Amino acid sequence: MNKQELHKLILKKRSFLCVGLDTDITLIPQHLLKYPDPVFEFNKAIIDATVDIAMGYKPNLAFYESMGLKGWESLEKTMKYLAKFNGEVFTIADAKRGDIGNTSKMYAKAFFEQMDFDSVTVAPYMGEDSVKPFLEYKDKWVILLGLTSNKGSADFQFLETGNGKLYEHVITKAQQWASPDQLMFVVGATHPEEFKHIRQLAPDYFYLVPGVGAQGGDMEKICQNGLSPFCGLIINSARNIIYASKGEDFAAAARASALSTVAEMAKFLPSFSKE
Amino acid sequence: MNKQELHKLILKKRSFLCVGLDTDITLIPQHLLKYPDPVFEFNKAIIDATVDIAMGYKPNLAFYESMGLKGWESLEKTMKYLAKFNGEVFTIADAKRGDIGNTSKMYAKAFFEQMDFDSVTVAPYMGEDSVKPFLEYKDKWVILLGLTSNKGSADFQFLETGNGKLYEHVITKAQQWASPDQLMFVVGATHPEEFKHIRQLAPDYFYLVPGVGAQGGDMEKICQNGLSPFCGLIINSARNIIYASKGEDFAAAARASALSTVAEMAKFLPSFSKE
Repeated sequence: MNKQELHKLILKKRSFLCVGLDTDITLIPQHLLKYPDPVFEFNKAIIDATVDIAMGYKPNLAFYESMGLKGWESLEKTMKYLAKFNGEVFTIADAKRGDIGNTSKMYAKAFFEQMDFDSVTVAPYMGEDSVKPFLEYKDKWVILLGLTSNKGSADFQFLETGNGKLYEHVITKAQQWASPDQLMFVVGATHPEEFKHIRQLAPDYFYLVPGVGAQGGDMEKICQNGLSPFCGLIINSARNIIYASKGEDFAAAARASALSTVAEMAKFLPSFSKE
Repeated sequence: MNKQELHKLILKKRSFLCVGLDTDITLIPQHLLKYPDPVFEFNKAIIDATVDIAMGYKPNLAFYESMGLKGWESLEKTMKYLAKFNGEVFTIADAKRGDIGNTSKMYAKAFFEQMDFDSVTVAPYMGEDSVKPFLEYKDKWVILLGLTSNKGSADFQFLETGNGKLYEHVITKAQQWASPDQLMFVVGATHPEEFKHIRQLAPDYFYLVPGVGAQGGDMEKICQNGLSPFCGLIINSARNIIYASKGEDFAAAARASALSTVAEMAKFLPSFSKE
């Protein structure tokens, strides 16, 4: 999927909502525990309930790895299930990987070949050769950490480097490595005021925006400041949607929560919907 | 294992060599492919051949993830096998993880509970709250990326921040988060000249040093500049040892290669062996 196809997908669904599949077996409804793979059953139900209104899904790898082999199996099954909606959803491996070249190549193989994700989040600390191996796959994306949503983002990302703050320099520098058809940046929703300025840093690139919902990000301001003619934003919400109810109605409740987020987004649609 | 125990282990083995288990199924001897789990058979043979002279083992997660479920299984089996040598080896999950707090907590669970690694490598970009959850485990270690061995280390790690270069600031700042009993830093062997200065940045902390061997790091200079009275260095070598031969004699060849590295180290032992 390239940038134009991504834009089309968003226009078709009238949504730039990505659902975070941060599935924690201790938080899912109890009645699912009777299934051989409760995490997969949960993900499948969430996907079925939201696939017409969510443009994508973002499993966070940590939640699966914390369950060991069984978790990795649930993730592979989830990806196989999502393959049914090929071209209709954008998938993000939220893995925050990055290593020396020959090792990043192995991570790229894991996420793009073994599991056929459309994209993977990558940490920038190790620089260009840690990112490049992911870019060797046509129509696959790197989503590079820019300004993250957590409190610790203040520790290093705001350091003045002589080329702007560290996160600004990362966003500027990385544009030399890949086009807006293969690269986007993570910018947390907890920095709504910075978003106007951040949009200017990479005017042609998409931003993946986590932190709306449980982390307190302000979606309205993000949209006002961050949207572009090609949309340019993917807003991720996890806990607020997938754990909207812990009862047997969890899938319906997830849909209702996703619908309300998408309705909020709809207010801003005219500003980017002209093709 | 705390710092004192680590030091004791190194003195006992007369070695601060860690063997990198970067096991790639396309590079291991062909005759192993007849086993149901060739990667595990390979690791087991390498461990058996080197466990008396290597102080630790460092599987790089990427190599296992690139094989999907099967790779994860090989890794779990390798860790179960290493548990036989409990207290006799230090294990490092070279994973370079790091995420917002509630997610890093899941990664900590994966590496410290599911697989009982002694330590995990963590990327610093997301700051303190991305590191803290790993430190909540007693006797478990965070090995934070400082100055990495790859070419891309020049992209961001050498930026001047007003508090020194970025990697210097990371190494200085993180010492506020954890003691030398739970925190060490990755510093690549490809920066031997900087090592004298780097040793001063965190005089009481261990450094994990990858990049000796295939990546061209200069072990002699690293030892001259980096050793401390408590040793303070763990030198990792992977390809030079594990792929010393691709024939049926691979384990013996790995041992010979490890022995020659350990013999080089021995020259520097008197400088840190006084307890």
